[in-house]
Amino acid sequence: MAAPAPISPLAPKSFADLPAIRGLRFASAAAGVRYAGRTDVTLAVFDAPARVAGVFTRSKCPSAPVEWCRARLPRGTARALLVNSGNANAFTGHAGLDAVARVGAAAAKAIGCAAEDVYMASTGVIGEPLDPAKIGAVLGSLAAAAAPSGMSEAARAIMTTDTYPKVATARFEVDGRTCTLNAMAKGAGMIAPDMATMLSFAFTDAPVAAPAMQALLTKAVAKSFNAITVDGDTSTSDTLLLFSTGAPEIADPADRRLAGFRRALDRVLLDLAHQVVRDGEGARKFVEIAVEGAASARAAKRIAMSIANSPLVKTAIAGEDANWGRVVMAVGKAGEKAERDRLAIWFGATRVAAEGLRDPAYDEAAVSAYMKGEKIDVKVDLGIGRGKARVWTCDLTKEYVAINGDYRS
Amino acid sequence: MAAPAPISPLAPKSFADLPAIRGLRFASAAAGVRYAGRTDVTLAVFDAPARVAGVFTRSKCPSAPVEWCRARLPRGTARALLVNSGNANAFTGHAGLDAVARVGAAAAKAIGCAAEDVYMASTGVIGEPLDPAKIGAVLGSLAAAAAPSGMSEAARAIMTTDTYPKVATARFEVDGRTCTLNAMAKGAGMIAPDMATMLSFAFTDAPVAAPAMQALLTKAVAKSFNAITVDGDTSTSDTLLLFSTGAPEIADPADRRLAGFRRALDRVLLDLAHQVVRDGEGARKFVEIAVEGAASARAAKRIAMSIANSPLVKTAIAGEDANWGRVVMAVGKAGEKAERDRLAIWFGATRVAAEGLRDPAYDEAAVSAYMKGEKIDVKVDLGIGRGKARVWTCDLTKEYVAINGDYRS
Repeated sequence: MAAPAPISPLAPKSFADLPAIRGLRFASAAAGVRYAGRTDVTLAVFDAPARVAGVFTRSKCPSAPVEWCRARLPRGTARALLVNSGNANAFTGHAGLDAVARVGAAAAKAIGCAAEDVYMASTGVIGEPLDPAKIGAVLGSLAAAAAPSGMSEAARAIMTTDTYPKVATARFEVDGRTCTLNAMAKGAGMIAPDMATMLSFAFTDAPVAAPAMQALLTKAVAKSFNAITVDGDTSTSDTLLLFSTGAPEIADPADRRLAGFRRALDRVLLDLAHQVVRDGEGARKFVEIAVEGAASARAAKRIAMSIANSPLVKTAIAGEDANWGRVVMAVGKAGEKAERDRLAIWFGATRVAAEGLRDPAYDEAAVSAYMKGEKIDVKVDLGIGRGKARVWTCDLTKEYVAINGDYRS
Repeated sequence: MAAPAPISPLAPKSFADLPAIRGLRFASAAAGVRYAGRTDVTLAVFDAPARVAGVFTRSKCPSAPVEWCRARLPRGTARALLVNSGNANAFTGHAGLDAVARVGAAAAKAIGCAAEDVYMASTGVIGEPLDPAKIGAVLGSLAAAAAPSGMSEAARAIMTTDTYPKVATARFEVDGRTCTLNAMAKGAGMIAPDMATMLSFAFTDAPVAAPAMQALLTKAVAKSFNAITVDGDTSTSDTLLLFSTGAPEIADPADRRLAGFRRALDRVLLDLAHQVVRDGEGARKFVEIAVEGAASARAAKRIAMSIANSPLVKTAIAGEDANWGRVVMAVGKAGEKAERDRLAIWFGATRVAAEGLRDPAYDEAAVSAYMKGEKIDVKVDLGIGRGKARVWTCDLTKEYVAINGDYRS
């Protein structure tokens, strides 16, 4: 492995302090799964059974821990979460499923719960067998050391090629009671050397039952983690789990008492999703693509993702060029309804194209100055309907190619 | 514009000599559409009406000349083809359609035919108005100078960021008569600074009628130009036209007398498609992706394209790394049926993964040596059906980002 990369220039200027959540403790350890001299295993323990909801990769070749979690999710309760970095335990055949079962059993024994209540996630190299003994060796001390203050350290232990830990927190009220939501994520845009993962874990003490958690989580993901892309490559291991230590009082996701929780969840996941993009490999620009006036919201999102995944759009932004012709190309290839002569495109506040051709009034100097900034907003109005969507991405730089192509050559 | 790029290291070692086709003449000129000091307009004239078939971009924002050609294709006859480089006449609104109509009328006058029989294509910068007067000014001399030997020069006149002209030829027999097929293409992978185009034009004297030409062309494209990708970005201007000066004797594409023509068409278009990939921006490796054992041929092609378009697979190949984990990832994200534990992957002759995990027998040194070569074959067997497909791509290098991101910064 090369020396750690410098922190992304797009990293947040400060990191959130995470308040403790009653009944939830963390511990991290250096188990030597792959990396030396850093923590690589983290354990979260719930003193009483917690409610759990989850969203996973859509890959047809998911990792062994993804299969494990997906199979246990319908039970809706958890006593522990165990995450390792350095090895994704993906494409490891039956040995991979065996390793998950062994680690799960060892964790259950250390905590004193059923293996069914242990959730697991792994991130790192794929195709290498995961040695369950390495993780097993630290489980006893992790269970003993777990403390309410350990979540920031956990956010570091799950990093792979991330240049900074990603955390977010929010306070909100449910039925007059103040509640907390803490969340962490790892991922340099779903991707990394040897392929990695977007993992995210959120914890709350809100009094919400599992079905409502699942419904609100699924909705929040569509507007956050499923609205970002670094390179369009989907991990085998993407995992997002939401746990609640609160009493399962409110089961209807539409219950008005959950409005504050819903807003907090939306805000915290969007914050983390943006942090993932800002740590995108080689990223120098944080890019927001807003599409409006599309035939439907679904069409708007597909068009926005077509723009956000276009290597030509992303290299142009890296080159600080307001190349709206490439935006037209990306709209055209999305396969959704578009009428060339109704299309309008903005970079920042400047409309550069309208009614099927270059806006004759646009100030090239102003746009050139805008393109030198760190945050670039691209807006497209299709002018044919009311569908809209917003997605986020980063530019495509030579550093991306170097990170993903030079590491072994 | 920067100095011309050096010829791609993947360029063919020699270029085909194109024999003349009776009744077909070419001339090229430097009209100064955008480039200085080079030819940028080419005219092909048919002495008698030729049969024509065509395939165009699927972009929802096609260029003005694409709309012109598509509307005229059902007539099935052509007297001229006029192509310019330097300006794609795309996203130019009603002025763009006007420019096409004016250029078409001027060409028709110079040749002495109906404007309906003039086919046109444009490639180069988009969003800039195309000045019809520049092309109009050279039409008289082009019509006068047109000669049977001018096709190789035409292949140069239609280049944009191509580093070499792309031509191919074949001889075949139809009903005991020897016939010829000549073809040319331009494109550095459908893409270029300011966005460009894949254009290709084929000419034959085979005695084939337009419906048979169209059917055979559509089939040949699926296995050639629609089986290549440099970066997954689709041009607004992609145009492939096939003309025949022969008598329209054979109208049934399944007629056995057309077997030689069909094979020649398949071979020539595949040759040109490979030449386009070999001129892919920044390409250093020519990559063949073969997928077999898929649920269907369509599924196999989607999986193959998912691998061929993956930035992580392409950067790994640039780094000479047989990173089969990224191939698994790309199979998984394609959305087609796959069973992890039946998947097998080869780089060249070496099977690196089988039955859901790394092949324990594989020789890492042999694969490392193989990855240093110029031609890289990746094979995936899904082990679940009989569907198969082959596609071609190139690696993703820092030069790609430089060509597409540095040109204005």
